[in-house]
Amino acid sequence: MSTATAPTATPTPRPEGLEGVVAASTALSHVFGEEGRLVYRGYDIHELAGKASFEEVAHLLWCGRLPNRQELDDLRRTLGANRDLPDDVVAVLRALPADTTPMDALRTGVSTLGAAHHDLFDETPDLDEAIALAARVPAILAAFSRLRQGEEPVTPRPEHNTAQSYLYQLFGREPEPRHWQPLEVYLVLLADHGMNASTFAARVIASTASDLCSALTGAIGALKGPLHGGAPSKVLDMLNEIGSVDNVDAWLTHALDTNQRLMGFGHRVYKAEDPRAEILRGMAERASDPAFFALSKTTEERALALLEERKPGRRLYTNVEFYSAAVLAAVGLPGDMFTPTFAVARSVGWSAHVLEQIANNRLIRPQSAFVGPTDLRFAPIEAR
Amino acid sequence: MSTATAPTATPTPRPEGLEGVVAASTALSHVFGEEGRLVYRGYDIHELAGKASFEEVAHLLWCGRLPNRQELDDLRRTLGANRDLPDDVVAVLRALPADTTPMDALRTGVSTLGAAHHDLFDETPDLDEAIALAARVPAILAAFSRLRQGEEPVTPRPEHNTAQSYLYQLFGREPEPRHWQPLEVYLVLLADHGMNASTFAARVIASTASDLCSALTGAIGALKGPLHGGAPSKVLDMLNEIGSVDNVDAWLTHALDTNQRLMGFGHRVYKAEDPRAEILRGMAERASDPAFFALSKTTEERALALLEERKPGRRLYTNVEFYSAAVLAAVGLPGDMFTPTFAVARSVGWSAHVLEQIANNRLIRPQSAFVGPTDLRFAPIEAR
Repeated sequence: MSTATAPTATPTPRPEGLEGVVAASTALSHVFGEEGRLVYRGYDIHELAGKASFEEVAHLLWCGRLPNRQELDDLRRTLGANRDLPDDVVAVLRALPADTTPMDALRTGVSTLGAAHHDLFDETPDLDEAIALAARVPAILAAFSRLRQGEEPVTPRPEHNTAQSYLYQLFGREPEPRHWQPLEVYLVLLADHGMNASTFAARVIASTASDLCSALTGAIGALKGPLHGGAPSKVLDMLNEIGSVDNVDAWLTHALDTNQRLMGFGHRVYKAEDPRAEILRGMAERASDPAFFALSKTTEERALALLEERKPGRRLYTNVEFYSAAVLAAVGLPGDMFTPTFAVARSVGWSAHVLEQIANNRLIRPQSAFVGPTDLRFAPIEAR
Repeated sequence: MSTATAPTATPTPRPEGLEGVVAASTALSHVFGEEGRLVYRGYDIHELAGKASFEEVAHLLWCGRLPNRQELDDLRRTLGANRDLPDDVVAVLRALPADTTPMDALRTGVSTLGAAHHDLFDETPDLDEAIALAARVPAILAAFSRLRQGEEPVTPRPEHNTAQSYLYQLFGREPEPRHWQPLEVYLVLLADHGMNASTFAARVIASTASDLCSALTGAIGALKGPLHGGAPSKVLDMLNEIGSVDNVDAWLTHALDTNQRLMGFGHRVYKAEDPRAEILRGMAERASDPAFFALSKTTEERALALLEERKPGRRLYTNVEFYSAAVLAAVGLPGDMFTPTFAVARSVGWSAHVLEQIANNRLIRPQSAFVGPTDLRFAPIEAR
């Protein structure tokens, strides 16, 4: 693309990417990047991981506090009642080719839900819609995952929690605790994360007074990008390419020599270890095949040492994606379901942010710095 | 929703909505709000409206300059070759209920295109994809508009330009110049508009290195919101409610007395008349039924006077939506196709912004101000 050349009309361009610019206030979650802390509604992530269920965390994010027994039972019942997909959504998933990526199928399925079910998903997002979407995001992914393999969707069991139901709807058999329990902790860890790009996209869309499915459709599209949520399966690819502990140094050195990006390190906000990486590392150690964990751990240690050597002072740490790969693989998920499973967790954060945005809405409409001429004269095509 | 209460962790909350904050640099277009000027790639909108075709403007936005004859012929041929919808997209549109809103159908159709056609819409947006989407956005809308009425989609004619083809695909008959010509000027006027909310959503999504259909799907969801593009049919509703010139004063006074929002006035950035409103007013005068134009003009004049009286100094002017309603109605479009027709125009600006974003990408990931506690301790459910 050629670009125009004359001087700028707005004289003070600011840094691109809104780095460090406060775009909104939120009471939902915060990333304390210097300290390596993540807080949901006042609770450090270490207070919640392994203690609170995903449904308790969803209630916390949506409603501002942990539920009591009655509230939790009600929420679980409502989630259970919303997991069966409407026929039109299944028909749309069925129309997609088998090689459709699951994120594209999810984006299309959520858009279809919003298009075809105005009875539930009307123009004003509310908590009922947030709950319904939290139940249907994993249901859409599971249904598509089966359809692309020539299998029919599975009727969900209302007694399952989110992690159990997702695995049951994916694989059609009762999930084992050694699978659904680490998955549940993963869902808790990934449920929200401040003003990340997909959440921000959801809030921008919601700020126009658009509907919840529009906001989540945009968020899914943003999460799909490899600079946001689209990379965890690439960590798995990298570890598979390295193949063995013996090969770690040679592989990493070659990758850095040829300016390849190492997957699973560095983050815009964290300048200390991501607390989710620390928790996931412990889970990976317990849940993974020991040889695979050893490969992961050695790769991590050598990568951090080499990155510090080559990019001193850049403060690159292990990010959430690195051990997500090991945990999700141990849970039994294929690589192309890693980012979609991130979406299962984050769909709760997205809808909570949409509800917070519209509770005190102001259209998110920034300015741009114009870097082009302003006084060209139109010439008819014959004169060009 | 209850919200948390303790003091903020980030001490300096900024204004919400990013008002006046520069989010990105662009050479595509700029709104000079104080002067009431709109510039595309160096050309004032008055230089282009009524002189340049929509296809010339699309080339200008995508490629940075107006096309020569050969380039324009090539672009028209490629657009013509892309207007036939793939069967899977038609199947998905067919699966939607007849009462689906056209914006929801468009969002779902574009998402389906991206999901099912990786041969064309791969992971890196490019000009070919932008052209293909510019051809298919009106095709999706026209096909859905026919399907919901029980009619089959019409095979497009490759010799049509965008405005002609849209009307032909909608109504199945050769469009008259008095219809397609004002529509073409409308498409030129609405093709881009700086860092508006839908364009910003598209750039946020693209900045994660996601694909073009994801970015446009998010943008369509944002445009749908009544605080952005979702209001022009409400102008028509308002004018129909007023009904006659005699009723203007009474209706407006009652609306303002009861704190209703008058549709079609005020804009975040313009503090002078929107230049598009000026051009559309002239077009409405030529294209509309004289009685309807008189009703529009009287309503505009009295609304501006009453707003200045009641909200002195707020500098509320007629915005683009006010006369869009009259022009699009004169062109023969039903009210619920007004915002979708805005999307036909803006899809060119969206894809041009995506191409500009990724040409020099930096992830758009702002900060948030945290307004909650940070030190709560988890208590098991029995203790709550």
